[in-house]
Amino acid sequence: MAKEYDIIIVGGGPAGLTAAIYSARARLKTLIIEKAVPGGQIATTGLVENYPGFPDGVMGGELSQLMADQAKKFDTETISAEVLSLEVRDNERVIHTSEGDYSAKAVILAGGADPTKLGIPGENEFTGKGVSYCATCDGPFFINKVVAVIGGGDSAVDEGMFLTRFASKVIVIHRRDQLRATKIIQERAFANPKMEFIWDTVVEAIEGNEVVQRLQLKNVKTQERRTLEVGGVFVYVGLRPNTDFLKSILALSPDGHILVNEQMETAIPGIFAAGDIRVNAARQAVSAAGDGATAALAAEKYLSQVGH
Amino acid sequence: MAKEYDIIIVGGGPAGLTAAIYSARARLKTLIIEKAVPGGQIATTGLVENYPGFPDGVMGGELSQLMADQAKKFDTETISAEVLSLEVRDNERVIHTSEGDYSAKAVILAGGADPTKLGIPGENEFTGKGVSYCATCDGPFFINKVVAVIGGGDSAVDEGMFLTRFASKVIVIHRRDQLRATKIIQERAFANPKMEFIWDTVVEAIEGNEVVQRLQLKNVKTQERRTLEVGGVFVYVGLRPNTDFLKSILALSPDGHILVNEQMETAIPGIFAAGDIRVNAARQAVSAAGDGATAALAAEKYLSQVGH
Repeated sequence: MAKEYDIIIVGGGPAGLTAAIYSARARLKTLIIEKAVPGGQIATTGLVENYPGFPDGVMGGELSQLMADQAKKFDTETISAEVLSLEVRDNERVIHTSEGDYSAKAVILAGGADPTKLGIPGENEFTGKGVSYCATCDGPFFINKVVAVIGGGDSAVDEGMFLTRFASKVIVIHRRDQLRATKIIQERAFANPKMEFIWDTVVEAIEGNEVVQRLQLKNVKTQERRTLEVGGVFVYVGLRPNTDFLKSILALSPDGHILVNEQMETAIPGIFAAGDIRVNAARQAVSAAGDGATAALAAEKYLSQVGH
Repeated sequence: MAKEYDIIIVGGGPAGLTAAIYSARARLKTLIIEKAVPGGQIATTGLVENYPGFPDGVMGGELSQLMADQAKKFDTETISAEVLSLEVRDNERVIHTSEGDYSAKAVILAGGADPTKLGIPGENEFTGKGVSYCATCDGPFFINKVVAVIGGGDSAVDEGMFLTRFASKVIVIHRRDQLRATKIIQERAFANPKMEFIWDTVVEAIEGNEVVQRLQLKNVKTQERRTLEVGGVFVYVGLRPNTDFLKSILALSPDGHILVNEQMETAIPGIFAAGDIRVNAARQAVSAAGDGATAALAAEKYLSQVGH
């Protein structure tokens, strides 16, 4: 027998925790299923300067703890489990996990999206100490520094251009000899005097002392190796939303994000999505939290409609 | 000559202030134009329990002050002025105000929406002390109390149903002899044992001591007057988005909200909308703030595209 709830939320980052605050405060029996450490991407982030309400900034870990405390205050339950599959029965949505089955009338999918990592030495060690996956979040910490951007798609070039507002120089390192970014974005990037490009090159290691100081590069055509001094490195080689278990059930974008309308409703009644897992997310803690509130209100309305 | 900015934000509530935090932090010259007191609806709200990051709650006035401090820290300018009109020239958007003209390449409209007031004695006096315009926000403060809902549309009945999660009884007071709410919503409401209805009746005064204690009612058909004891009253007689000055320029919903896509773009390039002023807003501080971040990121991208 599956344990029953009114609303089950998959994912315990800002989107999931905010959905829980709204749902549990509305006296709905609420469960968060989180795969490992709660808090989502923000929990492993350093200083967050742009979450509204904290003029002096707040450490990412502290912010997610505050949100978790708030969800708990209104009696949200939380379990650590890996979600294996989602099953849609009439009015019931059953979540099969590594720790057993859980069912609810409404489910909010808020499992986020992980940036694809390079998987090279120094990357994990220097995350938050010069290695970043978000220019909007961390760009302002690199004023007048030389930064590298790794990648060649629209995101890499867009975010590189954004970084020229802060950095003295932005060096895009791409493993091919041309960008995958759309033409107009490329043209603007080539015209920007602060942008430089290193082609046919991969980064083999990120090195430094307290913070990032240099990259070890290898040209994939000539096999030549060199060192590049940088003050920071932004990695944009892809985003992997945590939607593998949903492929056979929900409409996803080509890169795996869940399609929703502006009420955060998916194509299946009673299933909602919020935060970085959904299509066209702004990838910010506050926008994820806003999504979470919107999804919870839509889920409450749905529960009223199906006669909860 | 209009004074020039990169981004002008109309409205200084959570949506506008968050847009400013993002825009100014991205080193864009940012101006907020606010009609009177900064802070939006939230500034005049009492305890806010559901803004994520504040497990013990935060007073509405304090939350908007924190957001305003954060916007100011990144060098947002703010002026008090009444916006008279918005003029769209090629790449320039000019805002004519009571204090002169201001121009920018991008404008974010975040002027909110005011709930329509009853305009009766006691309404302003008891706002936040038993009079509320938001069941999601304030419902949990009325556990086991008798509350009245004034109005007869979908919002009034939906929010009344929501309040039955907390209140011992919810009495809908409507000036006509039937609801304007859609059929299915009506049926659910009539079937709910906690819901009661008083027809053909208007509220003439809200009375109490420290908090709301009773309503003075008048039957509009019989002219009879009576007193109704209540612990709270929720007013749902309409929402007026602050969009009168936009009617000739932007596509609006029938009730005056600005049409946007999920990136908060309006139909006119360089003009964005965020928060309660846009269509289908969740009407929560955190969702408005999320909108503000999304709109600012879209505006930044727009500025890059037009060659800022």
